[in-house]
Amino acid sequence: MTTYAAPLEDMQFALDLAGLPEIAELPRYAEATPDLIAAVLDEAGKFGAGVLAPINAVGDQQGCRLEPDGTVRMPDGAVEAYAQFLEAGWNSLPFDPDYGGQGLPGVVGVAVAEIWHAANMAWSIGPLLTTGTIEALSVHGTDHQKEVYLPKLVSGEWTGTMNLTESQAGSDLAQLRCKAEPAPDLGEDRYRIHGQKVFISHGDHDLTENICHLVLARLPDAPPGVKGISLFLVPKRLVAADGSLGDANDVKAVSLEHKLGIHGSPTAVMAYGDDGGAVATLIGAPHQGLACMFTMMNNARLNVGLQGVGIAERAYQQAVAFACDRVQGVDVTDPATGRATIVHHPDVRRMLMDMRARTEAARLLTYYAAARMDLAKAQPDESVRAAAQARADVLTPVVKGWCTEVGFAVSDMGVQVHGGTGYIEETGAAQHLRDARVARIYEGTNGIQAIDLVSRKVLRDKGAAVRALVADMRATHDALTGAPADVAAMAPAFAAALDDLEATTTWVLDHASPLDAQGAATPYASLFGIAAGGWLMMRAALDARRRLDAGTGNPAQWQAKLGTARYFADAVMPFTRAHRAAALAGPDSLMALEEDWF
Amino acid sequence: MTTYAAPLEDMQFALDLAGLPEIAELPRYAEATPDLIAAVLDEAGKFGAGVLAPINAVGDQQGCRLEPDGTVRMPDGAVEAYAQFLEAGWNSLPFDPDYGGQGLPGVVGVAVAEIWHAANMAWSIGPLLTTGTIEALSVHGTDHQKEVYLPKLVSGEWTGTMNLTESQAGSDLAQLRCKAEPAPDLGEDRYRIHGQKVFISHGDHDLTENICHLVLARLPDAPPGVKGISLFLVPKRLVAADGSLGDANDVKAVSLEHKLGIHGSPTAVMAYGDDGGAVATLIGAPHQGLACMFTMMNNARLNVGLQGVGIAERAYQQAVAFACDRVQGVDVTDPATGRATIVHHPDVRRMLMDMRARTEAARLLTYYAAARMDLAKAQPDESVRAAAQARADVLTPVVKGWCTEVGFAVSDMGVQVHGGTGYIEETGAAQHLRDARVARIYEGTNGIQAIDLVSRKVLRDKGAAVRALVADMRATHDALTGAPADVAAMAPAFAAALDDLEATTTWVLDHASPLDAQGAATPYASLFGIAAGGWLMMRAALDARRRLDAGTGNPAQWQAKLGTARYFADAVMPFTRAHRAAALAGPDSLMALEEDWF
Repeated sequence: MTTYAAPLEDMQFALDLAGLPEIAELPRYAEATPDLIAAVLDEAGKFGAGVLAPINAVGDQQGCRLEPDGTVRMPDGAVEAYAQFLEAGWNSLPFDPDYGGQGLPGVVGVAVAEIWHAANMAWSIGPLLTTGTIEALSVHGTDHQKEVYLPKLVSGEWTGTMNLTESQAGSDLAQLRCKAEPAPDLGEDRYRIHGQKVFISHGDHDLTENICHLVLARLPDAPPGVKGISLFLVPKRLVAADGSLGDANDVKAVSLEHKLGIHGSPTAVMAYGDDGGAVATLIGAPHQGLACMFTMMNNARLNVGLQGVGIAERAYQQAVAFACDRVQGVDVTDPATGRATIVHHPDVRRMLMDMRARTEAARLLTYYAAARMDLAKAQPDESVRAAAQARADVLTPVVKGWCTEVGFAVSDMGVQVHGGTGYIEETGAAQHLRDARVARIYEGTNGIQAIDLVSRKVLRDKGAAVRALVADMRATHDALTGAPADVAAMAPAFAAALDDLEATTTWVLDHASPLDAQGAATPYASLFGIAAGGWLMMRAALDARRRLDAGTGNPAQWQAKLGTARYFADAVMPFTRAHRAAALAGPDSLMALEEDWF
Repeated sequence: MTTYAAPLEDMQFALDLAGLPEIAELPRYAEATPDLIAAVLDEAGKFGAGVLAPINAVGDQQGCRLEPDGTVRMPDGAVEAYAQFLEAGWNSLPFDPDYGGQGLPGVVGVAVAEIWHAANMAWSIGPLLTTGTIEALSVHGTDHQKEVYLPKLVSGEWTGTMNLTESQAGSDLAQLRCKAEPAPDLGEDRYRIHGQKVFISHGDHDLTENICHLVLARLPDAPPGVKGISLFLVPKRLVAADGSLGDANDVKAVSLEHKLGIHGSPTAVMAYGDDGGAVATLIGAPHQGLACMFTMMNNARLNVGLQGVGIAERAYQQAVAFACDRVQGVDVTDPATGRATIVHHPDVRRMLMDMRARTEAARLLTYYAAARMDLAKAQPDESVRAAAQARADVLTPVVKGWCTEVGFAVSDMGVQVHGGTGYIEETGAAQHLRDARVARIYEGTNGIQAIDLVSRKVLRDKGAAVRALVADMRATHDALTGAPADVAAMAPAFAAALDDLEATTTWVLDHASPLDAQGAATPYASLFGIAAGGWLMMRAALDARRRLDAGTGNPAQWQAKLGTARYFADAVMPFTRAHRAAALAGPDSLMALEEDWF
């Protein structure tokens, strides 16, 4: 079993840089005082380290079980941890006080959730999906639906799931076949659902007595394709108008997947309506299900990016602990001191610095995007809200794609730091790699994220949102050039990354055919992640330098931040040039082979 | 279960490009006619596909068992497959006819072994280690040792192992504690070994009745550090002078590791001398064990690089099969044709082309290095032999490091091509990722390979071997610029990669301190792999163009090679510039943090 301690100092710093002080001044978040936030993070750190982290390896080893009676049993400790989680009020943190939430800014909820993912990624998928369900219901639900379902979801007494995928419809939701029929015999706005959904995370479990499944299905009069999809809420147990629980609904988990990782999260095949029809209620307008689901999905995408941050932090901490303990070889800068811990070796340092730099940049980027969502909701000035929403929109696929790549790369490097020991399961390093792997796949593969970025976030507004971002980045670059020498030294590397982002954006705008755009999507997204994460690392360096000069806080923290930002500039940023070259080469060599030559 | 078909056309092409025709003209390899080689590859392909591939998933699921009586049981089918392997004579293919080998060039043995690794990487670790044992005994054994042990190892009736690692001595062999005492009571040149070795691949199994353990240990008068290590052969069962088997020796597997992958290969903790002393014979001179072990290790390093090639090919084939079968979305270049298989999508094409290009480049590089070893042994001209040996020496860490990175990256991308299905163990894609992961760790981690490259292969000869390689690369570049337009178009990308290799080599030579050299090692090795693999892809493109113009062979194969080489030039080569930047940034940011800031 490996230990974990929430990196509270860096989380607090990332919240500051994301603009939490500005958000906390908005009337809606008046209660989010610095003292309260600090206390919340501190307590969350204790809960993550003391309750969730200890059952992480257990969940991996035991996995989940589908009992013969159709019940899904969670691994040892999961149910008790969930009860404590609810008891402490963790589930309700960022939600609307009208429905029992604590009304803290979303970015604070994100910081706290980073701790859950780091401590126990598999277990935390449950609350992650509940968060998305609350978001979708809050935006698209009727008042009655909100009154019935939101209090239970906000408290965490019930959990939520997302049911999109069918075996023939993964990335291609147009192929959905799940059917919904009006059932006026059951009451107003009642439907019966028939069909099967696959890869349903936390599709069934014994954490709560009810589960709210959000299900995409087609109404009888639906047009074909994605314009004929509607969103339904299908509770595991029927819910009366007063919110009380009724009979079991006609929905069940029929099998659980045997996966590479996240064994502690049940991934189910869900059967709807095998016994006459699963009773459902419509969320939003008929045939508008995809738009409703995107509300949930955009929330989930940010939170999946956050899983990348969490698992990276966990893997980093474990690698550091190993490297500071394992004695092997001599310190090449001072061989006379005899055998040294491997943290002294330059090549091990490279791995640790790379893990640290990527993890911190991914944290900054995720918190920054989450803070934009808070501003988009709560800022009184409409133009500020719109700008914040546009920024959040363009960054959502970058957070999901790049931060999950970081999560995997860092977990993978964590295995490498351990040498042979890393390949042994008992060490725990390999579990992080296995767990982290899924985040690049689910909630839309990273290829889908890249295509979303290029087609919906760059081409659709003709580059306006990206240009606004680049303008902010240019301002940071100007600040770097005027900063003290240690910070100014990073300016050339950042300038090059910024040039790459601009040049490749221009190329994408000039090559808007689906073939060109999709061919360039993945290199463009990779480049974007480095440039955006790097931008925030540069802002972090400027801020660290200021705090150091002002003598505030812990000087070692600011020195370390400066060193880590410098590593990012030295060794991570140069990769934007390579991704730019790959994008600008165009699709010819991608498509050079006939299908039967493969 | 996934299928596998040996890529015989590309293997044959890679053998040609590696110089097999030239090697086959040497007197020693007179029997290696083109017809014979083709027949051997064809039969190997059938054996891999028909016998080894079907038990690959079984081995992963069952793993190996240590019975209460100390016997290690292989998974179902492994023992039978090994018997067939011996029966068909596969084990003896590249070895000396004086000891029962078939005397084929080593590079042909490498091509055949690629098939074994692709078909069943875990199972094939046994023969891989036997090959290294044969190599070490052939070079360092006495005539008597060779007479007693080599025939059994060459036939495969006995297998070999490498026993280096102890729990406190991994990369740092100076810390070895295993002890050897002379035992004149047992006969001339007899020793007793005491100690424990860990991470011993195929340390025990039920494939054969004897196992020859090569074990590093210290004699009583040994100087400290690596200059006091000797190499011993410890048979599992004692062997009489006439080669007949005697009693069990005092060596046993005391536990098996629970690993991320290669479950079909038993990784044992081996106890020597718990019951009085394991009887051993000295290989080579006292205290020269490390040099002897390096003979074995260099062979094993090439073969571990080859594992990377094999697993990459396997993952590539599986991804192609899925992409050509899975229907999802529409062909963006022709949406009117309706739903299409995902092989039509540009982003999926990028993954497949990336997998293909890296796999082919890694194959070319591994075969090329293996062919240099053949020339270094068998070429009559001493200067040609020396040049070939120098080339093999510099490329060995590159093959081990870069090709295993390719093996993992391609396996990882194979999972991604499958989407959600890739995360499900039954698909088989995840097994390749788990299996491939170990090759970056064992036989010296890739960090150790990078340090070996920089310190022993660049700095030691002041860059002479690299300069000779760069001169050959320049000649290829000149040929590119004079070639038809489709090939000439790749010249600028290759020129840039070559510049990066030269500039970074110069920097390394100018910054020879251990801190500078080790700090730059990993980016330098990454750059070197791309440049060297890319060089051979450029030579392949030239050759494919020539064959196409001459109308020989299968035009689709040459067209595909040209397209794949172009992809490599477009999208892989540009990364040398980023690695160069990371190397030339020097170690300052690597070492910027105090140990307690991590």
